[in-house]
Amino acid sequence: MTTALPQSVRITDITGRDGFQNVKTWIPTETKKAVLSQLVEAGVTAMEATSFVSPKAIPQMADAAEIVAHMLENHPGVTLVALVPNLKGAQRAAECGVRHIAYIISASVAHNKANINRTHEESLADLAAIAEACPGLEITLSMPTVFGCPFTGEVMLDTVLYLLDESLKRGAAKITLCDTIGVANPVQVKHVVRGVLDRFPGRDIGVHLHDTHGMGLANTFAALEMGIDRFETAAGGLGGCPFAPGAAGNTPTEDTVNMLNRMGVRTGIDLEKYLRAVATVKDGVEAPLPGHLHAARTYAEFSFYTV
Amino acid sequence: MTTALPQSVRITDITGRDGFQNVKTWIPTETKKAVLSQLVEAGVTAMEATSFVSPKAIPQMADAAEIVAHMLENHPGVTLVALVPNLKGAQRAAECGVRHIAYIISASVAHNKANINRTHEESLADLAAIAEACPGLEITLSMPTVFGCPFTGEVMLDTVLYLLDESLKRGAAKITLCDTIGVANPVQVKHVVRGVLDRFPGRDIGVHLHDTHGMGLANTFAALEMGIDRFETAAGGLGGCPFAPGAAGNTPTEDTVNMLNRMGVRTGIDLEKYLRAVATVKDGVEAPLPGHLHAARTYAEFSFYTV
Repeated sequence: MTTALPQSVRITDITGRDGFQNVKTWIPTETKKAVLSQLVEAGVTAMEATSFVSPKAIPQMADAAEIVAHMLENHPGVTLVALVPNLKGAQRAAECGVRHIAYIISASVAHNKANINRTHEESLADLAAIAEACPGLEITLSMPTVFGCPFTGEVMLDTVLYLLDESLKRGAAKITLCDTIGVANPVQVKHVVRGVLDRFPGRDIGVHLHDTHGMGLANTFAALEMGIDRFETAAGGLGGCPFAPGAAGNTPTEDTVNMLNRMGVRTGIDLEKYLRAVATVKDGVEAPLPGHLHAARTYAEFSFYTV
Repeated sequence: MTTALPQSVRITDITGRDGFQNVKTWIPTETKKAVLSQLVEAGVTAMEATSFVSPKAIPQMADAAEIVAHMLENHPGVTLVALVPNLKGAQRAAECGVRHIAYIISASVAHNKANINRTHEESLADLAAIAEACPGLEITLSMPTVFGCPFTGEVMLDTVLYLLDESLKRGAAKITLCDTIGVANPVQVKHVVRGVLDRFPGRDIGVHLHDTHGMGLANTFAALEMGIDRFETAAGGLGGCPFAPGAAGNTPTEDTVNMLNRMGVRTGIDLEKYLRAVATVKDGVEAPLPGHLHAARTYAEFSFYTV
């Protein structure tokens, strides 16, 4: 049977954070700025542009302050999100003028430990400390490994719901469910999303789906069918988690927008212009771009078919 | 909302035909035989193994008779399908002992002309001639460009339904709806499949989805939600149509089986063994393999999660 999809969706482009963070070779700050500006020119209105983490842990994010300054100066209308792993990161972000942060608590204890070296209790305590110390910050709780953990396999929905509930109590405003290693399947996405929607009605829920096993767009469609209208995607499918073995590319923004266009779901993103940003990434970043559309070249020859 | 999926699906593996036919460099017949035997060892019970076409048009298929002999001698239990473009091909296939053929009429007039140099009327007349001349053959009507044409864009559902109706009247037993250039979207798949199911209730309907724009598994899921339980896929995503510019890989069998496994939908295919066949293709065939699973390597580390 068919289901009505949302008429429009909000893309949070994560090229600057999840895309760049996993690239081993240093990407010059000017290249990063150029890419992010091209994303804005293509119609991106929300982006996770960088991460305030220890430069020792992720050297690629060492220029976070400069990236934020670039965005605030040149693209003040864009909703600028910075990822932070802890109170120190949140404070640095706030000092730089950031107003939206993504704070991460992994659904899997083992991945939370590997990723940010904390127990769930420590992560929740830090979230409360951030909300208290930085009252001007809007906090999105980004939850890795909701659909599976690289270390311990299956993750219980009850654990996800418990952690989300505790996070909302401590000041998180939005929720993003992340398939960090790309092992979610569409049936599971529907099941988990329904569980979260039922528990937190009216809450802003987004998804972050990796394409490791080619299920990125299938899971996107499944989430759409459940009414989800916020998606995190990256140019060319760049990305992966440095602390999750086997994690591969994000779901490509341009492939997502192409599918949405064809289904009559609006994103506000201009595909031709977005592909120029992908070309800049291809030229300026030493990493494979697993996305399909930039390689297929012929997409524009076909009329868009919607029913 | 969620929909009950079929409990099991039938995979028709098309590595031998749609996979190999688009490879420019000659694949030794012994390599082809080895791959097809490995597919059978992995649990494949139905395959489109070759094509009885003019060797001038598609040199790679010149060993069709030898491939058929190999399959009939070594794997008599497998449902062996050969693609044929015309009466001559059907007669050659029948002489070789083939009992199942796929006969192609493209939904798009322009693609039918480019692909097999015929009008729709000529194609339908030839189908009637095949049914009369080869009464022992089970005919599947494989229809390219159902979801879009590389030359003329959008294809009307009414045209598809008309051609299917006329084909069934002339002796076709089954129907396969093909997204030759990988431009279908999940909403469209549901719309077209519903139209075909409504018009031909109880008929065996399969789909053949290319992954050109990364929507292969999304469209697979959409078709599954409509109750479709027969899919044509190829090892590693090998393939493409030689007469359709922009066509790229088939939806990979192993990626499809992985998604189905994770959703609790049975295929009878052993993923580990299937990946050995993919490795043989990787070693023995000069072509890119766009599939995800064979590159991700880590899939087996995670428990399968079904709900």
